This record gives sequence, C-alpha cells and structure tokens, in this order.
Amino acid sequence: MVLEKINSPEDVKKLNISEMNVLAGEIRQGVLDKVNTIGGHMGPNLGIVETTIAMHYVFNSPVDKFVFDVSHQCYPHKMLTGRKEGFTNPDKYLTYTGYTAPEESAHDLFKVGHTSTSVSLATGVAKARDLKEEKYNVVALIGDGSLSGGEAYEGLNNASTLNSNIIIIVNDNDISIAENHGGLYKNLKELRETEGMAENNFFKSLGFDYYFVKDGNNIESLIETFNKVKDIDHPVVVHIYTLKGKGLAPAETNKEAYHWSLPGVLNQNNSASSTFEESYTSVTLDYISRKTKEDKRVIAINAGTPGVFGYTPEYRHELGKQYTDVGIAEEHAVAYSSALANQGAKPILSFMSSFVQRTYDQLSQDLALNNSPITMLIYWGGISGADATHLCTFDVPLISNIPNIVYLAPTNKEEYLKMLDWSVEQDKYPVAIRVPMTELVSTGVEDRTDYSVLNKFKIVEEGSKVAILGVGNFFSLGEKVKDILKEKLDINATLINPVYMTGLDEEMLEALKSNHDIVITLEDNVLDGGFGEKISRYYGNSEMKVLNFGAKKEFPDRVSVEALYNRYHLTPELITKDVEKLLKTLSRI
Amino acid sequence: MVLEKINSPEDVKKLNISEMNVLAGEIRQGVLDKVNTIGGHMGPNLGIVETTIAMHYVFNSPVDKFVFDVSHQCYPHKMLTGRKEGFTNPDKYLTYTGYTAPEESAHDLFKVGHTSTSVSLATGVAKARDLKEEKYNVVALIGDGSLSGGEAYEGLNNASTLNSNIIIIVNDNDISIAENHGGLYKNLKELRETEGMAENNFFKSLGFDYYFVKDGNNIESLIETFNKVKDIDHPVVVHIYTLKGKGLAPAETNKEAYHWSLPGVLNQNNSASSTFEESYTSVTLDYISRKTKEDKRVIAINAGTPGVFGYTPEYRHELGKQYTDVGIAEEHAVAYSSALANQGAKPILSFMSSFVQRTYDQLSQDLALNNSPITMLIYWGGISGADATHLCTFDVPLISNIPNIVYLAPTNKEEYLKMLDWSVEQDKYPVAIRVPMTELVSTGVEDRTDYSVLNKFKIVEEGSKVAILGVGNFFSLGEKVKDILKEKLDINATLINPVYMTGLDEEMLEALKSNHDIVITLEDNVLDGGFGEKISRYYGNSEMKVLNFGAKKEFPDRVSVEALYNRYHLTPELITKDVEKLLKTLSRI
Repeated sequence: MVLEKINSPEDVKKLNISEMNVLAGEIRQGVLDKVNTIGGHMGPNLGIVETTIAMHYVFNSPVDKFVFDVSHQCYPHKMLTGRKEGFTNPDKYLTYTGYTAPEESAHDLFKVGHTSTSVSLATGVAKARDLKEEKYNVVALIGDGSLSGGEAYEGLNNASTLNSNIIIIVNDNDISIAENHGGLYKNLKELRETEGMAENNFFKSLGFDYYFVKDGNNIESLIETFNKVKDIDHPVVVHIYTLKGKGLAPAETNKEAYHWSLPGVLNQNNSASSTFEESYTSVTLDYISRKTKEDKRVIAINAGTPGVFGYTPEYRHELGKQYTDVGIAEEHAVAYSSALANQGAKPILSFMSSFVQRTYDQLSQDLALNNSPITMLIYWGGISGADATHLCTFDVPLISNIPNIVYLAPTNKEEYLKMLDWSVEQDKYPVAIRVPMTELVSTGVEDRTDYSVLNKFKIVEEGSKVAILGVGNFFSLGEKVKDILKEKLDINATLINPVYMTGLDEEMLEALKSNHDIVITLEDNVLDGGFGEKISRYYGNSEMKVLNFGAKKEFPDRVSVEALYNRYHLTPELITKDVEKLLKTLSRI
Repeated sequence: MVLEKINSPEDVKKLNISEMNVLAGEIRQGVLDKVNTIGGHMGPNLGIVETTIAMHYVFNSPVDKFVFDVSHQCYPHKMLTGRKEGFTNPDKYLTYTGYTAPEESAHDLFKVGHTSTSVSLATGVAKARDLKEEKYNVVALIGDGSLSGGEAYEGLNNASTLNSNIIIIVNDNDISIAENHGGLYKNLKELRETEGMAENNFFKSLGFDYYFVKDGNNIESLIETFNKVKDIDHPVVVHIYTLKGKGLAPAETNKEAYHWSLPGVLNQNNSASSTFEESYTSVTLDYISRKTKEDKRVIAINAGTPGVFGYTPEYRHELGKQYTDVGIAEEHAVAYSSALANQGAKPILSFMSSFVQRTYDQLSQDLALNNSPITMLIYWGGISGADATHLCTFDVPLISNIPNIVYLAPTNKEEYLKMLDWSVEQDKYPVAIRVPMTELVSTGVEDRTDYSVLNKFKIVEEGSKVAILGVGNFFSLGEKVKDILKEKLDINATLINPVYMTGLDEEMLEALKSNHDIVITLEDNVLDGGFGEKISRYYGNSEMKVLNFGAKKEFPDRVSVEALYNRYHLTPELITKDVEKLLKTLSRI
C-alpha cells in the first residue's frame, strides 16, 4: 500500500508514476469508503484525485499556496497532507471537515464551502506575497460549476492583471452540479473538442496565458504541464479535462446523482429518492407542475442545485421552457426573476437558505426597489448540524430588513399552499416564503386566509398572561411550550402564528397588553436582526416583558441540533424555566 | 430648434441625419445646463447622446424594451421620451430623477442606480416575452464600468444562451468612473484597435454574435448597425466606441473629474477640490499615506469610485503597488482583502455605504468565517436626501448581524484615528468602521482607549433616569437631547457613546438599571436589524423602558433630510416629546 507511506506532500514527491497511480486507486477507495459510511461529496472528489497528486508532486505546499474553490474537492488533498486517517479509519471519519479548514492543517488556507471564491482569494494571496517581496507559487483550483458565479469572474478579471505568479487550474468536468448553464460552458466544450485550440477562448480574452490538458486524470500529463507553469511570472490558466465520478461506474454515468451522496450509496440505487411520502418539497413540485400547465407565464427558476428542490432531470424536462436553471449565479437569478415579473410572467425562484446569501443588492435594488411580484422559496432555513460554511440561519435578517419584501413563515401544508398560490397570483409585492424544514404537517382544513392583508398575525389559541409567538418551523415548539406552561405553571398561554416576518400586527400586539405580562418569540434563525427583536422594539416603551428565543449570532461548525437547542434554550423545558424565572422576578416587583 | 418638435420617440423617427445631429447638440446643451445648475452625471450623458438618438430612431420604444445599466446615462433618453422640460426648463430640473423611473414614463422599465444589472434584467424581459409568445426587441445598454461587476457577467453568461432576440449594446468609452481595471478592459482595447477583429473576443467566447461600431458618436453608423441587429433572432453584442464627456472639452480630457459634477461645474475648475479644511476624508488620506510608507504590507483597496474616498489620480500614483482599485467588483474586493489579511498584509478596504450592499456572502464566508483582520471603511453611511437607488442606511443591518465582524461607530477625529490604527495593527478580527458623515469633530485630546477590549461602551456624561445611547453620527444628536431634557424636563440624563454596533456592553447596560428608567437609542440607519433593537432585546425581560430612534425600513426617494428627521422623530425636540410622553405613562402606572 502506497498511501501507508504518505504522511505529507514530501512523501508524494518520492513516488514514481506507477506508484502514484496505485496511490490514486487507494485514495479513491478512501473516498468511497468514507462517503459510503457518512455521506459526502462523491463525484467531485473521485474526479480530482490525479490532479491533487500531481499538484503535490510538482508544487511545494505549504510554501506554495493552494486555494480550493468550494473546497468540496479537497478529500484527496486532505489524505496527502497528514489527514489520511480521516478516510481510512472509520473511527476518524468525523475528525476532519469535508472542506478545507485552516485549523486542521497548514496546507489549508481558507474555510470555504460556497463556490466561486478561489480566484479572488488566490489573487489576494499572490498580492500579499508580492507586497512582502516573497517568492512562491499561488495555485487556485476552480471548476465543477464554480465558474458561472460573478465572484469567479470578478476574480479572473482582476487576477489576469496581477503581473506576477498566479496559476489557476480550471477543473472542467463537463458538468456542474446538474447540467452546466451558460455561454462559458459552450466555450469550454469548444476548447475540449479542439484540445485548447478553439478560436474563441474565454480565458485568453481576459488576458491569461493558457494551457490545456486533454486527460486531466492522467498523472503524467498533469505533471508535465504543471512543471511548465511552475514559477511562471504571470497569470496562467491550466484548463484540465477530468471525469467527474471517475472510478465508480454509476457515478461516471449519472454525474448529477453522485455529486453528493448519502451513506450507503454503494449498496443502493442513488438516483432520485423513490419515497412517495408527502413532504413540503413534494407538494411544491405538484403545485408547480400543475400551475405551469395551467398558465404559460409561470416559470420555475433556480441557481444550480436543482436537487435541493426535488427538480429531477425528468421534472425539469417536463417543465420545458417554463424552467430556468441559471447555474450558480444567484445575483442573475434574482434580477432575471424580477424582470420576468415586471413583464407579467410569474417566476417561482428557489434558493437554499445558505445560498440566498450570495445575492443581496439584487434583492434590494433589482427586486425590492422595483416591487416586482416574484415568489421566492427559501429551503432548509433553520438551525442544523451543518458545517459552518452551510448554515441556514441568516436568511431572515438578510431578507426581512429589506423594504417592500413580504417574507412569510408557513406552519403547515394548507397554509403553505395557500400562501404560495396567493403569491404567484398577486402583482403587488416581492414575496419570499420560508418552506418549513419540518416534516409535513397537515390540518386537513383548507386555509381561507387572505394573505393580501399584510402583517395580520393569527391567534391560534387564546389564553392570557403569556403569549407565545412561534414563527414557522418553531410554531410546533410553541405548541409544546404552551402545553408545558399549562402543566408546570398552570398558565393558559396564548399561542400565535405570526405568519409575516417582515411586519408587525400592531393591533394584535397592542391588544395583548390588556391581559398578558409576557410575550415570548420563537424563531429558527439568528436572533440578531431577526423577528423577535422587532417585537422587543415594539414593546420597549410598555410594561410588557419580552423574551426572544433563537440562535446566537455565531458560526457553529457541525454542532448537533440537540446541542444547539440546549445552548440557545430552544427546548420546551428550558423556555419554560426562563418564563418561570421571569415570572418570579415580576412577582417580586 | 429640433428638440422643440420632439415629444416622443415617434418624432425622432421623422428626422433626417442632419436634423438628428442638430438634435444631438441641443440635447447636449440640456445636459450641460441642467448639470451646471443642480449637479449630476455629466460625462456619461454627454457621451451617449448619439447612441440614444439612434436607438429611438431604429427601435420602437416602448414596444421594444430598453434597459439602461446604472441608468445614469438616461438623460438623453428622458429628453426624447416626453421629459425634455426636465432639462430645458430650470423650474422642472427637479421633476425627474437622474435615473430611469417607471413611474415617470412607460419608456423606463426599471428603477436602477447600481451598476451591472442591465443584462440580467433584459434577459428576464426577453424570457417573459418568449413565454408570452410575443415579438419585440429587448435592448440592454451597458458600459461605463459596469462590465466588471459579477452580476453583469452572470447576466452575459445566461443571456447568450437565450435562443431568441436580445441586443446588448456595450458602450465602451475607454474609461469606467476612474481608470478601467481588469483583463476585460484590455480585451476591449484590442477590439477597438482592430475594429472588432482581434483574435480574442470576450463576447464571442461567451457565445454572442458580435458587431463593432468604430465611431459610437456617429449617428449614421449607429443607425446602420442597429438596423442590422433589429429583430435579430439570437443574442448579439453591439460594441460601440464612444467618447465620454463629448462636447465639453475639459470633460473629454479629464473624464474622471467630469463623471459626476457639482453645480457650477462650467464656471469653475472641476478638478479635485482644493479645500484644505480637515475632514474625516482628509485625515484618512493622511493616515494611509503615512502608514503605507512606514509598512509595505499596508494596502488601500476600493471597488471603483475612488473619488468618494478622496483618492485622486496623484494620490493613487503615490501609493503605487500599495493601492488596488479592483473596478466595480465589490465581491472580489472583499475576498481579495480577506486573503491579503490572511497572508499577513494589512488591507484597508473602502466602500460607500450604498455599494457595500453589492457584497454579502463574501463578507460572511470569505471574510467573517475566516476571521481575516482587514479594515473596512464605510463612507457616507446615514440618512440623506439621496435618490432611492443610493440610500446609505442599510449597511448597519447588513454588516452587524454577521458573526465575527466588529463594526465601530466613531464620534470624533481622535477616536476615529485610534480605531483605525488599532484595526490596521490587530490580527484578530475583521473590523469595519463607519466613517462619520458629519463635519469633523476634534476633541484635541488623544484617545487612549484600548479597542481590543470589545463591546465596551463609553459613558461620556453620567446622570440618571434617562440614558441616551448616541451611535456614531448621532452622538451629537444625543448631546443635544441631553441638553433639552435638562432644560425642558430637568432631567440630568446619562450620555453614552456605544462605540461598537456589533455587541453589547452588558455590564454597563445592567448597571444602568439601578438608577435609570428609560434608555433611548439614536442611530443613523434603518432601525430594522440595527443597533437599537439589540438594546430592546436585552432589556426585554426587565423594567427598563427603551425607545429606539432611527430610520424606518423604506426607500425614500429624494426626500430632504429635514423631512426625514421629522418623519422619524430625529430632532432633539421630537425625541424629548416622546420621552416626556413615556414619562407621563410611567407616572400613571
């Protein structure tokens, strides 16, 4: 076993080509074993094995600096930089993150999990080197869909003028997460087909020197080319053509399904989940399917990651012209949707909470300022045990402090579908809906609310003394808190579903004053800039006491939901204790 | 006079070339007169006169749709679409905004004032047309620096795959706001020099059909080319070479100085202001000048608009390699700065408040998650009478709800300079400083505060009953409130300078409870997601009453500061009235 001998990149440099090929197989096995056990990015890492070996053979990390884009292609890099046990020893599978992590190794420069960042970051690294008058190679590894993001372009446009060493390896695997979208990808295809000789060359047009490697899974070719660009004195792009999923036949064929894999992927069919249970995703798919048939102006839009929304290849095909995946280009997705709505179409734009962060000015200027009536669905919003790079707790402060946008928090299926349809059919506001991340709750009763009457909270159960405002995902937590308050403190609390996260029902809040002493707010997002603070502000000049419950402003990294709930006092018991404590204080006054 | 006869684009179509040339001169005069009287975008509008005439001659607005990027080049368009009086009649100079405004005319599709948006918006307009199975031309006019922004690229990358009519006019005037930056601009230069025949062609590489117009101020050439692309069935770029500032000799020569002009520009030297009065800008320039000389790792960075920060051409030249203008590319600016800091350099990144909105995910992921110790200066933050597209009140909720970032609000020169130097020299946090937009206040006493002790508020004057937290710009308002509270209500209020907008001094807030009933917060930004709400949250479970003063979450459009202060209760008198009212309520309890 070659991997056994590899404790640092120094050891890679001692190998000959045939040993490196053996090593590639062993690294692949590590990726397969680990992902099959705990899940993770399968295809991207299988595709980049040879590139990573060649990089460590030719360059001299950590003196030479590697910047990985998205960094979900860093598993082989981790295995070559002292962290192989994270892949070979099941007890250590959870020791290292799935992304580059400076706290783990000097070979990792940045904590990165969103795409399109590497060229900008590498440009900064190179410029710092130049300011300090030092000498080494700065290498960015980008690809796998990242090139469609505006930050990547801004980075390329600036990197090309650097006047010193920067090496940008473009890993072109002919696919992003799903299909590639955009003119650039046509150009990459031309370049592949002409072995880099096509007349049109995006990278050359931006001022880069340019090399092409036909077989990006051939270690020898890679080494040859990397040696040519090593210590180069100007910006260069090395365009390599790799096979995503290489070494796992079904992943080579069905690249989209194997981009990210669940545990057990090797033992089962990894294609679209065949579960028929109803979920918020499935009812959304049904709605869009029906609505697009009924109205040719309805169009579903997303920015990469269609799988998050259950948009399978078949489903996308079915929607036809009434579907656009803009690729990883969230800014464009928002402006495009705004213009569609402005011109009478009915766009339904979906984002994963963590990725809506990739657009703000477009939400504010292109969308909200123009008051374009789009529907924006935010998925996966809420506290999770995710990696710090993929937290989904910031969408509420991001979206809800922008004027004009109506941000809704449904609590069950009927409410959600009613909101969705209202939003699609209305023409007054940009509407965002935070799709619940809970299991589907159905009341079985049609929701007849008129959501055009903005900021009208719903009193679900009327009580006194304590009022609970349970937002969206946390409405059910509110129900539990109500039960325990009754049981433990004999309080018959009022339970409220606020519905709107972007405005207050001042009439209702005012009325609560008459027979309530305490209002508690429960929200599944960071408290800072969120919903609860607006309630606190409202009651600031009154006798009403307010307790805000939600997540702390921080970047927890793979901390379990249970631990976070405890940390943030988000269990019915801890909330009840806080209420009890406050009641005791009040009685002493 | 030809302009006299022009009441709509229909009238333009009746003219011959020589009449159109006369018209161009008359439009230019309108631009000159208006800008000279009330200020505005001079160079961009002088340069685009002929293009606009040709567009209206060839195309059929509003059936054909025009989307203007930034839309600061829309003056000639306004003059041809029923709004000429806004330029010929001084009484109506303020009737129309300086940007496209749908509420003014059916010929304006979007309210736009930030750059790089037109291609995305036009793509949405074109797609809506296709969904509705209608036929007309969709024309985007981009240029003047906008092409360096990521949103423009995301738009181009998607527009090129549209498979139907979209016409993108690239107004290449060889300059952005200041110099152009980036590889793309080199390519534009090559294309200009080869009359569009250069081997490398950025637009073709993205899949566009391509036309070049050598003299973009020649109406005849423009009409000829526009006629060629009219009703085209696929995406096309028309690259036109225009002269920014055309018709005003000094503006043709010194394009940067005449990009935006103050009233009176024609009667005086419009080069860098020669005032020697000390200001927050001037002390920053002095600091950076000194610091870059002392330490080669210090580097000043901005994303376009160097004039906002007083970075004159001479100053930029002096900083040399220790200065980067990345062009309009705010996302790159943040990631680049983060990487510089990560590698031991000391970046000082400057943004105008309204434009920091153009980057969020980079602040969160590239910067805050990596805890890179950059210094970020936010200029012009605060309530103003600006156009709705250039409000500067959202930076506080945007920045301050991101973990790890320290956002400081200095209140005088000594404090500011101490914070600035602390920030540049420390290596623990990303630090943002909201440069006061007030006149410079100097205490004359060196500030010895240790800002590394985070979230320590300063009690400036100790009193009782009412505590005033006056943030940054509004500290002086707090001083006035204190005086009036004394005078009117005989209250000796405590005056606090909170310094930090990203964390609370809980010890101090707790201590205030002993002899204060009311805390009032004053902040020069929207209240939603801002500083005051955090204070309200903190006191939610206590007897302390809190009043938050700041701007409402809305997009006021050219409303005077005075009117806004009245609307938001931001005068000492109105605040005092609110306090008095609350005191009366309290005394009744």
